[in-house]
Parts: sequence; structure tokens; C-alpha cells
Amino acid sequence: MAAENGNADLADDGSVAGFDSLHRLLQSSLPPHLFQEASRLLIGLNCGKTLDSVALPAPAKSLSLNHDFDLQAFSFRADSESLREPRCVRVGLIQNSIALPTTEPFLDQKWGIFQKLTPIIEAAGASGVNILCLQEAWAMPFAFCTREKKWCEFAEPIDGESTKFLQEFARRYNMVIVSPILERDVNHGETLWNTAVIIGNNGNIIGKHRKNHIPRVGDFNESTYYMEGNTGHPVFETAYGKIAVNICYGRHHPLNWLVFGLNGAEIVFNPSATVGELSEPMWPIEARNAAIANSYFVCSINRVGTEHFPNPFTSGDGKPQHTDFGHFYGSSYDGLLISDMDLNLCRQLKDKWGFRMTARYEIYADLFARYVKPDFEPQVISGPLLNKKTL
Amino acid sequence: MAAENGNADLADDGSVAGFDSLHRLLQSSLPPHLFQEASRLLIGLNCGKTLDSVALPAPAKSLSLNHDFDLQAFSFRADSESLREPRCVRVGLIQNSIALPTTEPFLDQKWGIFQKLTPIIEAAGASGVNILCLQEAWAMPFAFCTREKKWCEFAEPIDGESTKFLQEFARRYNMVIVSPILERDVNHGETLWNTAVIIGNNGNIIGKHRKNHIPRVGDFNESTYYMEGNTGHPVFETAYGKIAVNICYGRHHPLNWLVFGLNGAEIVFNPSATVGELSEPMWPIEARNAAIANSYFVCSINRVGTEHFPNPFTSGDGKPQHTDFGHFYGSSYDGLLISDMDLNLCRQLKDKWGFRMTARYEIYADLFARYVKPDFEPQVISGPLLNKKTL
Repeated sequence: MAAENGNADLADDGSVAGFDSLHRLLQSSLPPHLFQEASRLLIGLNCGKTLDSVALPAPAKSLSLNHDFDLQAFSFRADSESLREPRCVRVGLIQNSIALPTTEPFLDQKWGIFQKLTPIIEAAGASGVNILCLQEAWAMPFAFCTREKKWCEFAEPIDGESTKFLQEFARRYNMVIVSPILERDVNHGETLWNTAVIIGNNGNIIGKHRKNHIPRVGDFNESTYYMEGNTGHPVFETAYGKIAVNICYGRHHPLNWLVFGLNGAEIVFNPSATVGELSEPMWPIEARNAAIANSYFVCSINRVGTEHFPNPFTSGDGKPQHTDFGHFYGSSYDGLLISDMDLNLCRQLKDKWGFRMTARYEIYADLFARYVKPDFEPQVISGPLLNKKTL
Repeated sequence: MAAENGNADLADDGSVAGFDSLHRLLQSSLPPHLFQEASRLLIGLNCGKTLDSVALPAPAKSLSLNHDFDLQAFSFRADSESLREPRCVRVGLIQNSIALPTTEPFLDQKWGIFQKLTPIIEAAGASGVNILCLQEAWAMPFAFCTREKKWCEFAEPIDGESTKFLQEFARRYNMVIVSPILERDVNHGETLWNTAVIIGNNGNIIGKHRKNHIPRVGDFNESTYYMEGNTGHPVFETAYGKIAVNICYGRHHPLNWLVFGLNGAEIVFNPSATVGELSEPMWPIEARNAAIANSYFVCSINRVGTEHFPNPFTSGDGKPQHTDFGHFYGSSYDGLLISDMDLNLCRQLKDKWGFRMTARYEIYADLFARYVKPDFEPQVISGPLLNKKTL
């Protein structure tokens, strides 16, 4: 029950020429009956049901062909119910590389991305997408690896240029848009945040969520630029369903996923920017686990390509200076992934599996109350600690 | 960072003849360079490092050949440290089918399992296994699908026959043994529990853990037999490292995994008995996610085969009565899986990724304190809820 844009695709390092995803590698290389069995085990998360392809209208396909971005659509099935109509929502996820080199004037870089995204957003509109999500900090290069403060210039208030750019599309296409940006909080001393703005289907701003968990690993020097968010775990009730946003590194935190679920989310977006061998094998695991554990849909996005920066920097790994952040794994194409989802599936899975009912939140409330105290003592039972053979 | 006995293997339904695991399906059917790339993405959880095979001593291999059980061994690598020696532990996981039909006298059934397990435990001992874990309720058929109370006869006190049987091996082989049984709590009115007994390497009983989360799904009528455990989330400090046990359905609960981690576990065992298409695609996800999120090793075990019962029962799915619980997916062979683990890897990953440091437990302690109150109100921000096109 997870739609993932960057999911388990291959690194664009040329090591496996000719395949742009694990799915396509297995599809091309296995006999059909073995591919079917491997798929059942690897992506059969839709409650044992297969994932169907969806036909898209011609104008969307034309935009994809003319502007050279990937366009794919799938559908998750739910059972029909007696007392409730299906609640089908069409969700779109966009991933893209930046438009211009990072040495170009900042304004040109930003407007280059606007220009690049326009036909992709139009394809989403032409496809009848109800809720669209962009990648993390989509209006700028992911420059936090540099630790240079000049990139802070890209930060915008909640109602800044990027939001205005998207509000127009939201109105035109009657589409909710999740817009992850670097936020400048002008009413609080120009503080910066990593924020998702939720734009309603009539172009209004429904609200915002600020990234809860900030990484300090590898070149993810994000804590140099912004702190842990102060907006809790809001769920946004839109015209098309209850949504939430778990930004990037928050996907490593099961508690973050959990509380969006406790607040009633039916779809949780995970806009990300992540690179390297370290996190790639974790990518197909974490979002799917969140979908399983919380009985909601998870939609994950990674960036595309490799971003190079003007000045060299080191990475805290003892290796020499370099100028790139590494490769954003996943498909190497800009793309729009569309998924149809019947939100009734969320409650159907809650009723069936009973994870909420059997969760025993009281014992965890008690545990956490004790854990956060400095004098917490873990529950450890010690046996004899000697290995007889070493005596 | 997860060793899994039943992991992602194929159902033994004949649909993919000749392959007893997804690993072997891909290995046999893909060219070597594509198999390598698929493996990197699918099982490359050991921090981007490959998993090495381990050579076992001849007596262990002889036992495997003579008694027809599968025997495999792998090794997880960790970096060497300057101030700390490696802390290498050899862990063994046993999975097996029952020995006799469920219509045979109960005592014969139990002793049949003892007899069947003996050479497998001896192979673990001959291989120098330090910590051995058996499957859930290993001394009996997994009869809870029937809802018949006669199977309660199999329940034993913590120091009962099954424990005594294993204590002898623990002493002989200087081996910690995790023994999941149906427990009869004679000091509390003969209450039954689903319990793991931790037997120390000198044959003593270190302690016990009672299953925290009890399923009510499909034929898992376990709440008919026993209730949610009352032993918290103990971590057992053994001669070979700090271990914990997350029994079966508890693997669907990220909080359960988390608290074993907060209490300091370095290895968490997940002895299970699970069947059917519904949970099979979730199996390769959940244990691995727990290993990632909590920076510890996870060792998962499922049962083997299909168990048939004397009297027919229905499954609450509208289908006719039948006499089997379904197929315990995973390998169709009895087997011993051995993994070498350097426990230093746990702290290395904590230092690197900082999931604990960035977890913000205070906000979750506050959230849970509010959530468990009947008047909890979710954090929901409502936008305009009308879809303009439907006006």
C-alpha cells in the first residue's frame, strides 16, 4: 500500500546499462511466471492484490512525449462495501532534476525549475490528479551539503513566489498541491524551516508542516540551516481525503509515521532528497513498513540526477574535497507517477488486522513518560555473564 | 541487518517448481551481474556491505545430511574500532515442521518434536552457536485456529519438560537458548501465556517474556487461549550480548520493536507462526525495518509445512469448514540458519545515523499521554472540503 517514485530503481552509474528500475530489470530478465512470483513477493503489498495499470488521456501523454518526462499510472484496489461508496482519489508524485547549473544566478535557477515543472504539472492536471506532491525543497538545488549560507537566499515565506506559482495550477485544475520548500519565517526573526505548504484545491493555503526530524549524517548538514519543526503532526483535511507529510529523514522514525496515523491520515507523503548506497537498500523498506503498520497509503519521492556545486567541500568521511552531493538514486528521468487509491482500503485494513486495537498505547505512554526522565533505567534482566569456555 | 529464516521464500504450493526461495529463484534465473545488482537492492541491508558465507565444521554438515535438514551460515561485517575489540556472536535459528500427525497422543507428538530437534540442536552446538532460538510454541502444533481448548494440555510451566530438555543442551554446548512455549502459569490460577523462556549458557533460566500483542485476524484465534503479556519489554543480558524477543504478531507493532531497543537490545528474535498470502509480502519488510529503525540485529523464524487438525473449523471468511491452518510460508525444509554478527555494528550505526539523538521522544511522550485519554482530539487542520467540480 505504498506508491513510490524512486522506489528500488537502479543507480544511474552505468553499472546496469539498459535498466532504469529493478522492476524493469526483473521484468526483462525473468520468464513471465517467475517475474509474476517475484512480483507477488516483492511488491504484493496491496493486500495480496495485483497492481493494475491505468490508461491516461492523450493530452497528458503528449506532454510527456514533447517534454521528455516519464509518465506512469497504477491503481490500488479495495473491496466494495455495503454501507459506504468507494472514495477514489487520484494522486500524482513529481520527481525532477534541477534545470540550470548551480553556478547560474539564483533567480534564473528558480525560474528554470518553474519552467521545467510547468508541463509536468499540466500533465497531472490533464490526467485529473486530485492531490499532487512535489519533491523536498523543490524550488532550489539541495545545497545543504555545502554548509555555505548563501543558499539561504532561496528560502521563501509560506505565501512566497513558489506558493503563488502553484496556487494558479491548484485553482485551474481543482487540485490539492503539497509543496515542500525551504521556508523563511519572517514573523520569527527570519528563522528557516524545512516546510511543506498544503495548497487547497481552490488555491488557498490550508496550512503547513515543518520537518520534525533533522539529519546529521553524511553530507546531510541540514541542522546547519534549520532546526526541528514546531508544528506537531498535523493532518490536513482536504476535499479529497486526510493527508499528512513526513519530510525526508522523518521516514527513519517509526514514531513520526505513527502519530500522523493517530491523527487520522489516510495518505502520507514522503518528499525526499537522498543519495548513496547507505540509504538505498533502506528505501523500499521504510515507507512500505509505515503503510503496513499504520493502515494508510504512503507516497514517496526522491530527487533526480546529481547536483554539482561551485565550491569544493569535505564530507566528514576522511576523503578529499569534492563538489557533488552524490547521486539521487531512483529513476534517472524526470517523471510523474500517478496512483488511483480507494481510501476505504485504510479502514478495511484497520478492521481486518486490528493493529490499533491491539497496540496497548497505555503501556507505551507510561514507558515514554519514564524514558524522557534523566534517571530512566532500562528493563534489563541479567543472567550469568561468564562464558564458561573462557574461564 | 536482519537474518531471516523464512524470509521471502516461496510458498510451497508447486507454483514455482524447483525454487525454494526468492534468493535461489533470482540466482538461478538472472545473469550474475544482474543478480548482484538485484541483491544489492533487495538484501543489501548490512550497511551496503555484502553478506559472506561461513564454512561450518564437518560434524554439523554430517548431521544435516544424515537427518535431512537445511544448514546455511552467513556473516555480517562491522568496521574495526580503535578502542573496542569486535564482539562477534554466532546465532542459530531453527525452523521445523511438527513430527507426528495431530491425531496422535499428545505426549507422542511432543516427544516426536524433541526427537526431531535433537540432531538440529546438536548441529548448532557442533557449529559453536552461542545463542540459539526456536520457533514460536515449538513443542506443539499451532492449534489455535481450532478454538478447541483441549490443546491447552500442551501448556507447561517455565521450568517444565521443554525447558528441561533444552537446559541439557545449553549446558553441554555453553549455549544460550531462546525457547518460545505455551506457558501455564500455575501460581496465577493456571493462566496461559505465549512466552519465551531464556535459558542461560550454564543451563539456568535467566527469565521469561510474555507476548505483548495478541492477534485477532484470520485463523489466529490466539486471544481465545491467552491474553496480552504482563512482563513489559525485558532485555536479557547474556554471556554473549543483550537480547530480547518480539513474539510473532508483535512484529506488526513498531512501538514493541522500539521499546526493546530503548531497553538496550542488540539482537531481537522474532519467533513466528504465520501463513497465507496476506502476511507473506509483509514478512521481508517488517523485521528489516525494525533493524534499520532501532540499530539492532533482528532474527526472524517461521514454522514449516502445513498442519492438519482432527476436527473441521471455519475461518470467519464465509468459506466452508476445513481442517488446516494454511501453509507456513518460507522454506519448506526443516533448517538451521547460522549468522555471525559483530554486535559492535549496533553502536556504529547509532553513532552514524543518529536516530536516537534525533528522535524527539519528549514530543511523543506528550502525545501518548494525551492520546490514551478518552477525550483525545487529533491534530486536524481543515481546508475547504468542497470539490468545485461537484458543486
